[in-house]
Amino acid sequence: MLYLLDLIGVVVFALSGALIAREKRYDLFGGLVLAVATAIGGGTFRDLCLGRTPLFWTQDEWYLGLASLTAVISLLAFRLWPSDSAISSHWARALLIADAIGLAVFTAIGTHIGIQAGLSPLMAAVMGMVSGCFGGVLRDVLAAREPLIFQRDIYATAALLGALCWLLIEPITSVDLATLCAISVTAGLRLLAIQRNWHLPTYHDDR
Amino acid sequence: MLYLLDLIGVVVFALSGALIAREKRYDLFGGLVLAVATAIGGGTFRDLCLGRTPLFWTQDEWYLGLASLTAVISLLAFRLWPSDSAISSHWARALLIADAIGLAVFTAIGTHIGIQAGLSPLMAAVMGMVSGCFGGVLRDVLAAREPLIFQRDIYATAALLGALCWLLIEPITSVDLATLCAISVTAGLRLLAIQRNWHLPTYHDDR
Amino acid sequence: MLYLLDLIGVVVFALSGALIAREKRYDLFGGLVLAVATAIGGGTFRDLCLGRTPLFWTQDEWYLGLASLTAVISLLAFRLWPSDSAISSHWARALLIADAIGLAVFTAIGTHIGIQAGLSPLMAAVMGMVSGCFGGVLRDVLAAREPLIFQRDIYATAALLGALCWLLIEPITSVDLATLCAISVTAGLRLLAIQRNWHLPTYHDDR
Repeated sequence: MLYLLDLIGVVVFALSGALIAREKRYDLFGGLVLAVATAIGGGTFRDLCLGRTPLFWTQDEWYLGLASLTAVISLLAFRLWPSDSAISSHWARALLIADAIGLAVFTAIGTHIGIQAGLSPLMAAVMGMVSGCFGGVLRDVLAAREPLIFQRDIYATAALLGALCWLLIEPITSVDLATLCAISVTAGLRLLAIQRNWHLPTYHDDR
Repeated sequence: MLYLLDLIGVVVFALSGALIAREKRYDLFGGLVLAVATAIGGGTFRDLCLGRTPLFWTQDEWYLGLASLTAVISLLAFRLWPSDSAISSHWARALLIADAIGLAVFTAIGTHIGIQAGLSPLMAAVMGMVSGCFGGVLRDVLAAREPLIFQRDIYATAALLGALCWLLIEPITSVDLATLCAISVTAGLRLLAIQRNWHLPTYHDDR
Repeated sequence: MLYLLDLIGVVVFALSGALIAREKRYDLFGGLVLAVATAIGGGTFRDLCLGRTPLFWTQDEWYLGLASLTAVISLLAFRLWPSDSAISSHWARALLIADAIGLAVFTAIGTHIGIQAGLSPLMAAVMGMVSGCFGGVLRDVLAAREPLIFQRDIYATAALLGALCWLLIEPITSVDLATLCAISVTAGLRLLAIQRNWHLPTYHDDR
């Protein structure tokens, strides 16, 4: 089940990369790079930190394959549908939702792998949060865009709370249940924060 | 012969870094960083993914040495020659050519190393393409410049076709011949695409 | 003593990250990410190059803990003090000083670790310089800011001279003394260069 979830995370994050490629009017290869970097960036960073090499995506072609396929199908879809301004705000919302699901899935998986690698629970939660966030940060840096994580919304906070939720539930029940709960918490919080316009305090007094 | 080609790739990619340092009016150390990052970035990424540590350039001083020397000599050369606008377009072309040769050399070497590390042929081609492209992407990100790879030109496509060419030729003939063919295909395609103004389809309908 | 110095480096670099988060008006989590990335970026890069995994900060919670604490305390401090323009130039100077101390500390430690990992002296100096500079470069790239290292000031040069100083003094005396001397040389040179407005030659003739 974890493997399946991992592939779902790959597809939604690849989609978020493709949506930004569309926004930035990149070509197919730019879109492929952005989709793949978003999809495998978090797991790559996690495994490099833990010394798990050769990396998972060099050993299993489904990761790059699915991410590339998502980028190609997105390009076709974007060209089929017109892009007047009403649709545009639709795509912007699709980007935020795909990003939230990818964040939630990769955070839960990253926390699990951190515990398996013998990290302390707190550090496993941090590793989960980093796995979840890194792909999106990489995507935004590559596209020369202000990273979503640096905007005032609840973002990494949602990932951290999901990871803590995993750590609380897993010892009592099972890995699968903990993963589902953690995903619901992270994605739910992130989407609620977007809808309700919840923010974190800033470094600068706004009065 | 592969080692020699590797060093040639280092010099041309270092030169492309120095040309961007000139464009951005960086100082000598900025130029050194950009030259070195471009020259060893692709190989560093490749070896981190495959778990080949400590990295090649920490064990052999020729890599950093040649890249630094290229940066220093370029700085002297740029200061000797005046920079009126006619010359400027000359330098812009030099950048595209140096970048194309570096891309071709590192793609061929990366594909070879991928096969040696036991990757599947398809994944070895991807690894070769990534090795070839990553240095230039890193250079452009560090210099806060829109990455060449994200522009509409044929770029990573040329690398991928070169890598596939290596995989087709190597089993029939030898590593050396496959490498030369792959380099010719990648560099040739990339330069033709620049000259003929070939593009990939974009994510956005241009009508 | 090295461990203590390492933690001091973490705090000052985290502070430099928080100061940039303030300048960019990021929220608390943006500030945390920037503080942590600056504080552990150099050591992470160094250990990835040398294959020292799992990384130090996944095994010892003081690193992330101290960096996060610095980011939180800075946010509180920034909100308590008003930010009229006179204070602003004060904070800009604080950023340059924190950055110089972090650069000096991590360069000395990186050189030591390079020698321990069996690198040649020259390569250990380069590794020290890279450890010192990388955190700040990462911080500036994440904040979409022109990296300090690419500005015309003496920056990496100060790190390199500090590293060379460590290599000269350590065989004659002790690791501790060499580290203190190297830190003084790097931080002293960097601060002098800022105060006296020393620059490196550029790639572009300014006449």
